[in-house]
Amino acid sequence: MRIAVVNETSAGDKNPDIIAALAGRGHEVINAGMTAKGSDPELLYTHTGLISGILLILGRVDFVVGGCGTGQGFLNSVMQYPGVFCGHILTPLDAWLFTQINGGNCISLALNQGYGWAGDVNLRFIFDRIFSVESGCGYPAHRKTQQRDSRLTLEKISGLVHRPLVEIIATLPDDVVKPALSYPGVMELIDVDSIEDVGLRAALLEHASS
Amino acid sequence: MRIAVVNETSAGDKNPDIIAALAGRGHEVINAGMTAKGSDPELLYTHTGLISGILLILGRVDFVVGGCGTGQGFLNSVMQYPGVFCGHILTPLDAWLFTQINGGNCISLALNQGYGWAGDVNLRFIFDRIFSVESGCGYPAHRKTQQRDSRLTLEKISGLVHRPLVEIIATLPDDVVKPALSYPGVMELIDVDSIEDVGLRAALLEHASS
Amino acid sequence: MRIAVVNETSAGDKNPDIIAALAGRGHEVINAGMTAKGSDPELLYTHTGLISGILLILGRVDFVVGGCGTGQGFLNSVMQYPGVFCGHILTPLDAWLFTQINGGNCISLALNQGYGWAGDVNLRFIFDRIFSVESGCGYPAHRKTQQRDSRLTLEKISGLVHRPLVEIIATLPDDVVKPALSYPGVMELIDVDSIEDVGLRAALLEHASS
Amino acid sequence: MRIAVVNETSAGDKNPDIIAALAGRGHEVINAGMTAKGSDPELLYTHTGLISGILLILGRVDFVVGGCGTGQGFLNSVMQYPGVFCGHILTPLDAWLFTQINGGNCISLALNQGYGWAGDVNLRFIFDRIFSVESGCGYPAHRKTQQRDSRLTLEKISGLVHRPLVEIIATLPDDVVKPALSYPGVMELIDVDSIEDVGLRAALLEHASS
Repeated sequence: MRIAVVNETSAGDKNPDIIAALAGRGHEVINAGMTAKGSDPELLYTHTGLISGILLILGRVDFVVGGCGTGQGFLNSVMQYPGVFCGHILTPLDAWLFTQINGGNCISLALNQGYGWAGDVNLRFIFDRIFSVESGCGYPAHRKTQQRDSRLTLEKISGLVHRPLVEIIATLPDDVVKPALSYPGVMELIDVDSIEDVGLRAALLEHASS
Repeated sequence: MRIAVVNETSAGDKNPDIIAALAGRGHEVINAGMTAKGSDPELLYTHTGLISGILLILGRVDFVVGGCGTGQGFLNSVMQYPGVFCGHILTPLDAWLFTQINGGNCISLALNQGYGWAGDVNLRFIFDRIFSVESGCGYPAHRKTQQRDSRLTLEKISGLVHRPLVEIIATLPDDVVKPALSYPGVMELIDVDSIEDVGLRAALLEHASS
Repeated sequence: MRIAVVNETSAGDKNPDIIAALAGRGHEVINAGMTAKGSDPELLYTHTGLISGILLILGRVDFVVGGCGTGQGFLNSVMQYPGVFCGHILTPLDAWLFTQINGGNCISLALNQGYGWAGDVNLRFIFDRIFSVESGCGYPAHRKTQQRDSRLTLEKISGLVHRPLVEIIATLPDDVVKPALSYPGVMELIDVDSIEDVGLRAALLEHASS
Repeated sequence: MRIAVVNETSAGDKNPDIIAALAGRGHEVINAGMTAKGSDPELLYTHTGLISGILLILGRVDFVVGGCGTGQGFLNSVMQYPGVFCGHILTPLDAWLFTQINGGNCISLALNQGYGWAGDVNLRFIFDRIFSVESGCGYPAHRKTQQRDSRLTLEKISGLVHRPLVEIIATLPDDVVKPALSYPGVMELIDVDSIEDVGLRAALLEHASS
């Protein structure tokens, strides 16, 4: 799987813990956000949510690991984008249930609140459980069909309530889009040249060069 | 404050606990969803998310208390709608921080997972903390401005990425909208006659009478 | 390893979950306490603490899994006995850290508070972590020596502050000892005949036959 | 109430948080242990457990707030002494239930594990709940009598299984007792001159002057 880790500034110092906890599992891990707290340039959760949304919508990654101090800010930010389904994951049990029941493509971690000594070990345990079960397989087994139906309905809703990405990028203000796109490495990940939608390409490039 | 409690079926048996935990605080509490597990008609989280979204967008209530077995399903469902900002609230500390930092208008509770003996007391403690601080006042105090800026940015994003409610209601499939609108009491709460937008009125009535 | 599961009455209905979570790990599991809530005869945490203490002191088992509604009652009860070191274990991380750092021979589980849906899965995750590391190996590695020193000191203290088991059994009131010893299967587990200390044998038999 | 805060070294840096969280409640708070991490002289949990035990047994304080990195070490240490009943308290709900059900005279806090940002607020919430209910009043109300009976039985057991304090102090090794008694302020708190038991007085003074 191709996984992006997208950290904002307040919990940027936990980025190495996430990277370490994801290592050695056979996944391609892309460190797309901040790697230290308060470094320059800075990403807020409004920026990391957008970066995560773009990467998921364009299929650049299969899964995003984000978060913030409490996990609630990134969660609310990334959930603004179509086709993003994000769990607020604090424990191995959360990870295991969310993966099976909700089959989301994103998790938001609490990286300051409750994150003390051995918080890095807890991250490792969380990822152990995410990757130990099949996404969307359902839990318990007899509720598999109903849970899948709810997921499919939610995906349909997400597509209908949101504007398409091209409109989103075109209308979002520059102070949201510019810091996201100009963050080192982000445009390379997005790989604008390979986007077929001419309008989206233009909208992204306009923000990037603004 | 005017608060809607909107329960889906899997954790419907926890509805009385929520109602009891909200009582005696001087708020108007509207029990808009299920009040028992598995009763008929049944609401899934896709339905309770929509009911909650409509009530918030139309200003029928100021705050929604929802949830599901783990809290993740309702969270992902209600976050589909513009102007909804929802916290995943498990502890009094979550409640206290989310209220001050994120100033949301909705919370999603885990009502089966981790909900054991004295879970009702924990709900009471959660509401004690939500109502003990000013929504959006910021925490810690010196981060007030930055947190407010992020909230305002997120509100702006939410308005731009989502279609307006009239389009949402018009395009969502009937199997999502109909069970929500036909749930006893929901149309009365929505009070269609008082909606100024003729198109929204028509879209709601069409689903309701379908 | 030889493991005793010793449940008291209030959370007796969780006994099957514990047994299932321990199964298939290659350990000999002895179900020494209650297997249902409120069944007759009933064991209180004062009784399960004593049963656990005796089994550990006499070397009848290597490890005890106990608990009660919150885990605090059994914890305080079993900690009355010499050579018992008990962790209050709520999460896989608790389990992993306690095993390595404290190397105890007993855990107390919260079996009503916070024990909701998928609580059985959490138990499984807890045991996964207990049996994934070496008891008392130390964590992190560089603190191994200091942690071992503290454990050894604590063992020495435990032996000096407590009376020997023979005195304990001889002086504890019959309403504590009798229900413990007369619980079905307990005297068989204790196997009085094989105890070398004549006084202890006599003390146990006196309570048992009282 | 007269409350001693007794911190060991590994979480000594959390001492100011505890003191702040206890302030302004009308209790006399005595900061009897370490106030910084790794300062000299150093107290391990074997020492803080002993200090706490002595202060409680001699009635020098009514309540002890202790802890360590995970809370398990201090818990196991302080539980070695007669008449000490200690809860492992992580959340406001733990605090509220333990106070009412178990009516203990000591709590052990996890001060590194899970202690992240706003951990100081969580401590405040914990103390809010401890002091909001009557110790040992029982919860729920209808189980008051049975819970009180269990507490009284446990107190009786604690008195019978342990040696008296004079023997404990006389037989514990000097490397446990000496660092505890020689810690600045401890002998003043113990106030040896006012102890009636000549043997205990002598045993304490012998360690102190060794």
